[in-house]
Formats: sequence, structure tokens, C-alpha cells
Amino acid sequence: MKPIQIGLLGLGTVGSGVFHVLTRNQAEIQRRAGRGIALTVAARRDLAAARAIVGDAVRLVTDPMAVARDPAIEIVVECIGGTGIARDAVMAAIDSGKHVVTANKALLALHGNEIFAAAHAKGVMVAFEAAVAGGIPIIKALREGLTANRIEWVAGIVNGTTNFILTEMREKGLPFATVLAEAQRLGYAEADPAFDIDGIDAGHKTAIMSAIAFGVPVQFDRAHVEGIRQLEAIDIRYAEKLGYRIKLLGITRRRPDGIELRVHPTLVPMKRLIASVEGAMNAVLVQGDAVGTTLYYGKGAGAEPTASAVVADLVDVTRLATADPDHRVPHLAFQPGALSDLPVLPIAEARTAFYLRLAVADEAGVLAAITGVLAQHGISIDGMLQRESAEGERQTDIVILTHVTREGAMRAAMTELQALPTVVAPIVSLRKEELA
Amino acid sequence: MKPIQIGLLGLGTVGSGVFHVLTRNQAEIQRRAGRGIALTVAARRDLAAARAIVGDAVRLVTDPMAVARDPAIEIVVECIGGTGIARDAVMAAIDSGKHVVTANKALLALHGNEIFAAAHAKGVMVAFEAAVAGGIPIIKALREGLTANRIEWVAGIVNGTTNFILTEMREKGLPFATVLAEAQRLGYAEADPAFDIDGIDAGHKTAIMSAIAFGVPVQFDRAHVEGIRQLEAIDIRYAEKLGYRIKLLGITRRRPDGIELRVHPTLVPMKRLIASVEGAMNAVLVQGDAVGTTLYYGKGAGAEPTASAVVADLVDVTRLATADPDHRVPHLAFQPGALSDLPVLPIAEARTAFYLRLAVADEAGVLAAITGVLAQHGISIDGMLQRESAEGERQTDIVILTHVTREGAMRAAMTELQALPTVVAPIVSLRKEELA
Repeated sequence: MKPIQIGLLGLGTVGSGVFHVLTRNQAEIQRRAGRGIALTVAARRDLAAARAIVGDAVRLVTDPMAVARDPAIEIVVECIGGTGIARDAVMAAIDSGKHVVTANKALLALHGNEIFAAAHAKGVMVAFEAAVAGGIPIIKALREGLTANRIEWVAGIVNGTTNFILTEMREKGLPFATVLAEAQRLGYAEADPAFDIDGIDAGHKTAIMSAIAFGVPVQFDRAHVEGIRQLEAIDIRYAEKLGYRIKLLGITRRRPDGIELRVHPTLVPMKRLIASVEGAMNAVLVQGDAVGTTLYYGKGAGAEPTASAVVADLVDVTRLATADPDHRVPHLAFQPGALSDLPVLPIAEARTAFYLRLAVADEAGVLAAITGVLAQHGISIDGMLQRESAEGERQTDIVILTHVTREGAMRAAMTELQALPTVVAPIVSLRKEELA
Repeated sequence: MKPIQIGLLGLGTVGSGVFHVLTRNQAEIQRRAGRGIALTVAARRDLAAARAIVGDAVRLVTDPMAVARDPAIEIVVECIGGTGIARDAVMAAIDSGKHVVTANKALLALHGNEIFAAAHAKGVMVAFEAAVAGGIPIIKALREGLTANRIEWVAGIVNGTTNFILTEMREKGLPFATVLAEAQRLGYAEADPAFDIDGIDAGHKTAIMSAIAFGVPVQFDRAHVEGIRQLEAIDIRYAEKLGYRIKLLGITRRRPDGIELRVHPTLVPMKRLIASVEGAMNAVLVQGDAVGTTLYYGKGAGAEPTASAVVADLVDVTRLATADPDHRVPHLAFQPGALSDLPVLPIAEARTAFYLRLAVADEAGVLAAITGVLAQHGISIDGMLQRESAEGERQTDIVILTHVTREGAMRAAMTELQALPTVVAPIVSLRKEELA
């Protein structure tokens, strides 16, 4: 059988990783796929740079649309990134009846529903293992490995840059800004780091996981997203004392009346495996009603790990390229006609536990006032820690861990707490998840 | 489309788990599979016990062969276990042109090659996610998720009973026999625990993972298998002092001249995530050339986790039941004509590091003699620990960690070390793997 013909859009970090893995492991991959996978054309604006990567092995063009429309090409691999040209090229490839493999989480988080609908109408596949957690086959686990389960929740460290920064902050006791600057110097963070550190990238990935876990459309626009810019080293230390680590988690949870979809720094019990996921590594926890808790861990970024996922998708798509669409795994794990309209809940409806740090005047009755306000809002206390004031100091920190509550109740309580005359600085609040 | 018709062999722990999960999550599963999955007949010798589990929902018979040959049945789920009736029934089902889903690792480890050959000849699928690490989709990760990679090695905690015992021994400082008795009392270990504690069950699972990782036949008969019966609490303590935990690992590694396939207690650096996998949990590490290290963690046994894997296989098989066999994932991950004849290496050819504990006379020159013997065999030392002798005591323990060496060299060295007049008791040796 003639090798399947692949066109590659973009020859940057991920694109060249795909070229290298496909070339290096050609024989092994064909032994698995039963058919050769031939990268025959690639698009990059800078042809000389492209030539330096692929040599004479691949035909090169400057226009991605020429690849997307090339009648000889059966699968288009999109490694351009972003939602501009990438979107046009993916839609053109689908329109031309080609299968698509993409690593582009932003594209799928923002335009996934439109893209999957077009692919379904044309009877082609859009595969996206590389869009979430790099080389970890988490999309496959969710879409295929756990199909027996009613999935209850998914919680993941899906952004390596922020996990690297949090690890450094904790290990070295340094403030966020210092660690960020160091991460930028080392190339772990972009010159414009907002996408990572404000949680947007994690939000894109969590929105995709939410869709395939629960059988709902991709709804990044409904996600509640917070990053780690505001996080203070002192809260990492207090959390540690209480037996917790702080991780930027993407969380999506099924509730009777809707779905939670949120990204924020989160206290996680130290004894959970995911609390020990350090540096730029990724890990995703999935809770299913039959399987219980499972965890998937590995490198979430980088040329080769991402290429690992792209090429695995190429093997899957190659195997099913000529099969009747009924034999394929549905894009969003559930049949297109069987998606649920369970809404994404507003953040005030989220149910989570909290960590509160209050700077208070060190005087009698302070704690009674605070616990009184929490009690009035039906919030019960799980643990507490009070810093001993230094000699002559007239204020101290009170750190409170609560049981699970409705976030709206906590917000109302915090407004009242903030108004207490003995609370002398803005209250710091973080969410806490037991993940069990 | 009419629901696909399933016949179940065995209604014990796993079989009833399959019934319960299929029943409870019927709607969710159909939304994914696009077709109903109907369990219509089940075989169990004790009909009254079977009726108590399934009620009137399922037709019951006593003879598994009747299900295996039933012309109305399209997929046979084998949950009998063992290699007697289970083997006959699986072969009969294949011979009758039915697809098979099985959780039976012993069957596949001992007769997998014959079963897969028969299935290939008949154009039917044999799916076996549940045979390794229960609900963790590790077979899918290896066969499909990591197809881009040249897999270098796989190392896993794949037996919950032994991991539970090792965890208890470490946490409570108790000897093996005490913990085993407690585990039997609690139902974590069988009345006849040999299968688990002697490493046989882990060996079966590792042989299966080895085959699909490297594209070789299943070769349990060539595996080197040791259990935890001989393990002493003192070695767990010494390992801990040196920064290691002891886990029963199933390891399979590709080497230029062959494949290592071995199960034994292993020192693992404490800082690795897998060292923190405690109690009855399972975890498998996979190292691929593109993806790097990935880890898969979850419950490795129990009715519902195992059923999770069986039912996921049912969804896969249902989706591809009527597809051309070319569209399916090959049984052993590689095309049947593309298996490698790379041999399994004898244990003497394994390359690993070692932990040695020597009880020695506390006199001058002892250490020089020991290190001299190791040096003569080309074995270099990575770390050492000597217990301080108590007042008046005339012997002590020397614990040595070596760098990676050929196991044959270590065995020769140990014979010489044991013959030294200052070595006063049998030497304890354990293997150590850095897993990086």
C-alpha cells in the first residue's frame, strides 16, 4: 500500500519535532501502522530556515493554503499555532476532504465546535492529542480508555511554565517576579508570559478536557480563569505548614445542575501524587465512577513530546483514514447527536474549600468576630493557624482552611470580613481541593 | 442499529463488576459508542448465585462453551480466569468468529501467541486492557498513545497485593510474615498467596507489556521472576536511609542485543513519583525516545476498576466490530508480520545497579577486601553505609550501592565475596534502578 501523504503546516519547534520523529522512527511506526507515513510537503514562510531543517526530504512551499488544498495530501498537520492563518488553513483542509492533526489548543478552545462540526459534515477526522498535556496520551485516555465511566471530575497541571515557577517559588522561597524573570532568562517563560501565567493556556486545555469528559461543547468562553501573578511566597509557606502545596490546576467537575470549569492556584494535599509533580512536568487526574482516581504524568511541552502526540494521532488517522466514519472515535468522545446541554456554572456556584489569610490586629475578640461571620454564612472551619506575633508587634496573620462551601457564600462572607475594623489588610483567599 | 450482543463467561468479582458498570452507565456508554451494548447471556456454574447478581436482566446458563458457541453472541467477555476452561472457551469463541474481551493475564501470558494467531486468522479482535493494571488504560497507552516512539523501557508496580505488603512493612517496620498474615485477614492477599508474592502475577503482566512495547511475542517463559518473600525489614530501612524505597517492579528494557524481562524487588529513588505509589495502587512508567518518561497510575484490581477496562474494550470492539481488520489496532501493537525476533536475554546479561548488605567481622582490612573484589569484576561503587557497631559487638553491616553493571559480573563477585572469611552471613543483594 502506498504511504499516506502528509502535509505539514509550520516548521517551528513542534513542526520540526514532527519531522524528526517521523524520520527517525519511520520503520518502527510503519511496523505499527501497517502503512508508511510520508511527509511530502511542508509550509513555512522562511524557506531557507525550513530547508535547513528538512534538507531535501520534503517539498517546501511558503503558503499554508497551498498545502491545505493540495489534492495529493491526505492528512494535514497544523503546527502554526494561533487562531488566524491556522484556522483558515484547518477549515480549508477540512473543506478539501482532508483529515487534520493539530497541536493547537487555542484554536480548538475558541473554534473547536465549528471545526468539529465541519469535519463531521465532511466525514473527516480532526485529531488533537497534542493540544493537551503534550506527549501524555490524556485525550486518548478520556475519549477511549475510560469510556465505561461516568467521569466525575478532571483536575490537571497542564501548563509547564506556571508549574516551573511555582516549584521555584516554593523551593527557593522567592517572590513571583524574581522567579518569572529567571524563567524568562532560561527560556521557560515567553517574553510576553501573560498567556501562561494568567492561566489562559491552562484554560484552553481544561475547556477541551471538559468537553470530552462530559460530552458537552467546548466552552472556553464560560471558563473562570485565574493565574498565578498575585500569588505570594508567604501563602506557599503557610500552605506547606498546613500540609498542602499550591498548584495551578485546571478543574472541571460534573454537578447535578451543571459543570464547573475553572483554572486557579489551588491548595492540594501534599500526600497526593499530583502535589509532587514539579518543574515543567504536567499531570492530569481523572475521577471516574468505576475506575476511581487515575493519574497521567509526563512532559507537557517541547518539540519531541508534542511530536510524540502528533505522530500517534497520525498513526490513528492513517489506520482509520479509509474506514467508514462510524468506526471512528467521535471528536468530542460522545456522538455528535448525543452531546449534553448541561450548562457551565458561574463561578459563584462552584463548590470548593478555601484557604484564607487575614492580617488582623492582635487583640481580644478578633477570632470570635471572624468565625462568627463565617458561621453566619454557613461556612465551617477545617483548620487554622495563627502566626505568633513578634515582641511589640500589634498585628498578626490568621490562616483559615474551610470545608467545602458554595463560592458565592464565601464571597459574601469575605466582603463582611473585609469590613471588620480588626482586619487590617486585603484578605488573601485561595481555593483548596482534596482531589479524592 | 440493534445493540451488539454480549455473552459473559464467569460472574465472580470481575464478571459482576462488568454487569453492574454496563447496567449503571448504559446511557453514557451508548452516547459514546453510538450503539447499545447488551449483555444478553452469562455463564456461571452456580445459577442461584448468578441470578442473585443479575436478576432477570440476563439469560443464565451453566456451560461457558454454550455462550462461546452461541450464534446470537457477537462479543464474548471472559471473566473466568485461569488457563483451563477459560482457554477452551476463548478458543471456541474465536473459532466461532466472535470477538473476545478478557481480563485474564495468566491466559495471555501463557497462551497469548496462540490466541492472537487464531484471532488474526479468523479476523476477530481479542482485547485485553483489563489484563494489566486493572482500570489504568496502560495497554491503550502502549499500543496507541505512544506509537510515535521507540519505547526504551517499561517499569511498573503491577501487583497491588505485594505493593500493599511492602507499604505496610515500611510504614510499620514489620516483618514480611506478619504483614502477609494481616493482609490475608483483611482480604488483600489470597489464602494461597504464592501467585502474588512470588511475582508470578506481575511477571504475566510484564510479559504482556514487553510484547506490545517492543513488538515481540509474549514470552513469560523467558522472564526472570522473583517475589518479596525473602525481603527483610532491615533492608527497607537501609534503603530509606540511602534515599530509596523498595518496590516490586516488573521491568522490560530494550537492549541492542535483546530484551530484558524481569520482576524483582527493586530500590527506586524516593524522589521519583513511582516511589510514592503506596498501598494496593498500581503505576506504570514508560520511557519513549520522543515523549521521555510518562507515568500511568490508578487502581490495579477490584471489581469496578477491572470492569472499567473491560467495558472500555467493549466500546472499542463494538466500534470496530464490522470494520475491515486493517482498520483495527494489531493485537500486539505491531502488525503480525512485523514482529521482531529480538531474544529475551538471560538474567546474567541484565544491566542493573545493586544494593548489597554484608554482615562482616568488625576488623581492619574488611572494606579493602570487599571493594577489591568488586573492582576486580569491574564493578564501581556509588554509595556506602556502615552501621556503627554497638559497644563490645564484633560484627557490623556494610551496605553498598553499585553503579550499573552486568548481573553476571555481580554474581561472580558475590561468590568471591561470600567466600571471604570476614563475611559472616549470607550476602543480601537487591537490584536498584534509577528510572530516569
